[in-house]
Amino acid sequence: MKITVWNENLHEQKDPRVTANYPGGIHGFIASILAEDGHECRTATLDMPEHGLTDEVLADTDVLLWWGHIGHRLVDDAIVEKVYNRVQEGMGLIVLHSGHHSKIFKKLMGTTCNLKWRHDARERIWVVKPSHPIAAGVEDGFLLECEEMYGEAYDIPNPEDVIFMGWFNGGEVFRSGCTWTRGNGKIFYFQPGHETNTAYHNENVKKILKNAVKWACPTVNGAIPVQKFAALEE
Amino acid sequence: MKITVWNENLHEQKDPRVTANYPGGIHGFIASILAEDGHECRTATLDMPEHGLTDEVLADTDVLLWWGHIGHRLVDDAIVEKVYNRVQEGMGLIVLHSGHHSKIFKKLMGTTCNLKWRHDARERIWVVKPSHPIAAGVEDGFLLECEEMYGEAYDIPNPEDVIFMGWFNGGEVFRSGCTWTRGNGKIFYFQPGHETNTAYHNENVKKILKNAVKWACPTVNGAIPVQKFAALEE
Amino acid sequence: MKITVWNENLHEQKDPRVTANYPGGIHGFIASILAEDGHECRTATLDMPEHGLTDEVLADTDVLLWWGHIGHRLVDDAIVEKVYNRVQEGMGLIVLHSGHHSKIFKKLMGTTCNLKWRHDARERIWVVKPSHPIAAGVEDGFLLECEEMYGEAYDIPNPEDVIFMGWFNGGEVFRSGCTWTRGNGKIFYFQPGHETNTAYHNENVKKILKNAVKWACPTVNGAIPVQKFAALEE
Amino acid sequence: MKITVWNENLHEQKDPRVTANYPGGIHGFIASILAEDGHECRTATLDMPEHGLTDEVLADTDVLLWWGHIGHRLVDDAIVEKVYNRVQEGMGLIVLHSGHHSKIFKKLMGTTCNLKWRHDARERIWVVKPSHPIAAGVEDGFLLECEEMYGEAYDIPNPEDVIFMGWFNGGEVFRSGCTWTRGNGKIFYFQPGHETNTAYHNENVKKILKNAVKWACPTVNGAIPVQKFAALEE
Repeated sequence: MKITVWNENLHEQKDPRVTANYPGGIHGFIASILAEDGHECRTATLDMPEHGLTDEVLADTDVLLWWGHIGHRLVDDAIVEKVYNRVQEGMGLIVLHSGHHSKIFKKLMGTTCNLKWRHDARERIWVVKPSHPIAAGVEDGFLLECEEMYGEAYDIPNPEDVIFMGWFNGGEVFRSGCTWTRGNGKIFYFQPGHETNTAYHNENVKKILKNAVKWACPTVNGAIPVQKFAALEE
Repeated sequence: MKITVWNENLHEQKDPRVTANYPGGIHGFIASILAEDGHECRTATLDMPEHGLTDEVLADTDVLLWWGHIGHRLVDDAIVEKVYNRVQEGMGLIVLHSGHHSKIFKKLMGTTCNLKWRHDARERIWVVKPSHPIAAGVEDGFLLECEEMYGEAYDIPNPEDVIFMGWFNGGEVFRSGCTWTRGNGKIFYFQPGHETNTAYHNENVKKILKNAVKWACPTVNGAIPVQKFAALEE
Repeated sequence: MKITVWNENLHEQKDPRVTANYPGGIHGFIASILAEDGHECRTATLDMPEHGLTDEVLADTDVLLWWGHIGHRLVDDAIVEKVYNRVQEGMGLIVLHSGHHSKIFKKLMGTTCNLKWRHDARERIWVVKPSHPIAAGVEDGFLLECEEMYGEAYDIPNPEDVIFMGWFNGGEVFRSGCTWTRGNGKIFYFQPGHETNTAYHNENVKKILKNAVKWACPTVNGAIPVQKFAALEE
Repeated sequence: MKITVWNENLHEQKDPRVTANYPGGIHGFIASILAEDGHECRTATLDMPEHGLTDEVLADTDVLLWWGHIGHRLVDDAIVEKVYNRVQEGMGLIVLHSGHHSKIFKKLMGTTCNLKWRHDARERIWVVKPSHPIAAGVEDGFLLECEEMYGEAYDIPNPEDVIFMGWFNGGEVFRSGCTWTRGNGKIFYFQPGHETNTAYHNENVKKILKNAVKWACPTVNGAIPVQKFAALEE
């Protein structure tokens, strides 16, 4: 499987806590997790030509992971369109944390993807659908000592599956792991991953990311066509 | 609309806290709430002949509410079968609190309906799908100072809609308000309502029950048939 | 309820069959159907300033119906954005026939909305979910003698409900009546309605449109917000 | 993966067309298809002690396939209960053709599973969700020259995915390939397979069965428990 981990890579340039948490950037760190499973992993960032998402890279990507936050508006609409089209063709997409407000995720959902938020909460993540392949081997009710709170109402279309739900010590709940299909592409949203916290070091989170890329790997290649169609029967 | 509120009415016979909370029993109290909207409300209990759910009563019921807990096993299978058949025909069913383990709910869900539980938690209920008619006028994040904790994983089939989610101070989350269709019948499960607590006095809970019976009211009458069917085309 | 029926109103200007079928245009004809139920119905067309969908009109619309075909590209993106935002706030949207490829529908779905098609087929429409309010009083398996064939695979996200399915004499099938929620807005797509055929004269089709606007009428007003949220619990 | 193919094996005893179609019985024929993929395949039939579904066999089965028709009532309720419990624990279940009215399928669905039917129709099967793993490599719109017609309304709960839809020359449509989860078990219903026809010889049907057992293979083992749960937070 060929994986591309995209990161805006902006916090890393100005907040030393982020590079302390994730040497090599969030993209580099996540790529190294997924490489443990033998996948071919590349990274791409906002500052690269075409944000690193050239036609060649996208055509050669089975699953794309997306981490963005303060740079959503800086992402070129033409690139968003290309990523969108690749999802329609079957490329898997894993949207991480603040990527809920990315152009690509909102465009695929057809909603605002709004939510409640607050920094520095304690979170517990519960497995709601243990039979889902993305939950395989994940500990029920695992703890993230410090994570950004994201709370309901989360303005997303009804997910196909809600696999994980988050509890926050401030009184909030969240659908933390959800799936959808768009065109032939499988999409997974996963809530943890604030840049000044350390969620991607958590063994359960690593397991979830590894499971998610396998689940999102396409079995077809090409968008559902519009076709003028000759009658098969008289 | 014609409503029947069923209650096993067992706690009421031995625990004075329950009758202190709900004079007239949980069934009587809920019936009085729904009667405020002008519905014709009757009650039925375990100790009545056929548990009060005769063919005549069921045929004359648009929406049935079900509260049960320690008496699930005492409910006659033949009556469960009749209620099941009426749901297939279109009768709405609102299953309350510990009714998650009732024979009728498990038979309709096709799952164990298991969950985690603990007495005396503090709960907050969040509106996850504000556009759903059952959420109309309900306050986001409303508080129940003392309620039984029900926690995920809740072993139910994917709901058609998750309208409410519950947060508990012990660290748990729950899909507290969910809908399904079975046959022509609309089903709503709502988690609050422990007998020694006072959830049904809460204004938001009252609103939810009033909304739910309207939503569950049938628009058809009769089960989907099995039919040997003559070809319409050659 | 306040209803706006939008039509590109282009075929009507050049194909006398269309005005023969629908004097007053498709928009006028549908508005007259819905007005029979006592709703306040206005129409709006592509050629009007802001396509007739000014801020005032949209703010004053509970449910918008959309018929478009050859003019999709002529619809101003700024107007599409406004309609999109009103759906997020709760405005119901009924998308008709070739509106599957309208900008607004594709933007809300997040997919290509592609399908197979062919003119002049015989269609039968089956009720798949008879308990849905949109199916109330609709005849099972009703016939449209001549309608455009739309066939699967239809590139839409999994609907919340598939209420109707279409059979075509050339050998194809289609999910002809489907619902989704986006933000607080309820959306119904309904397949029949080719401009040179007469589907909107069919009594079952009329019933479906009348049911659909009632179902799509909002119970809230305002989009789900993004909120920095203070902790409710310590 | 360990597969058990269950068949009532009754038509085979009295209708020579069935054994002509499927030497070794429907169960033997399907087992031989799945064995081509290297799975360990056993068969079980109604006439065996405990219908061949002993505790040992069920505990040793990852995915169970079920073909039944005229013998539904002869299946022991105690065995149905055991199969049901194994599905809750995670065993995959593929229900074939007239198995829609089997005790186990109705018990898992919570509906009547009624439908329209007629012998000897021409069917075309369309791929509605091409990205689903069960559709991988399946030809769009493939033809079954002679198959029993099953028509909507099909009284099932909303499927998690509708992967295939069937067209019949008599004018009917059907959701021919659908999935659900119950407990930890994945369930796939697939409509073709009438005993006097030859659907299981079709290459697309074979591919679907092979895909389905892979999809239904469990990733967990054990039912979701009911648990009195100690608070994790104060």
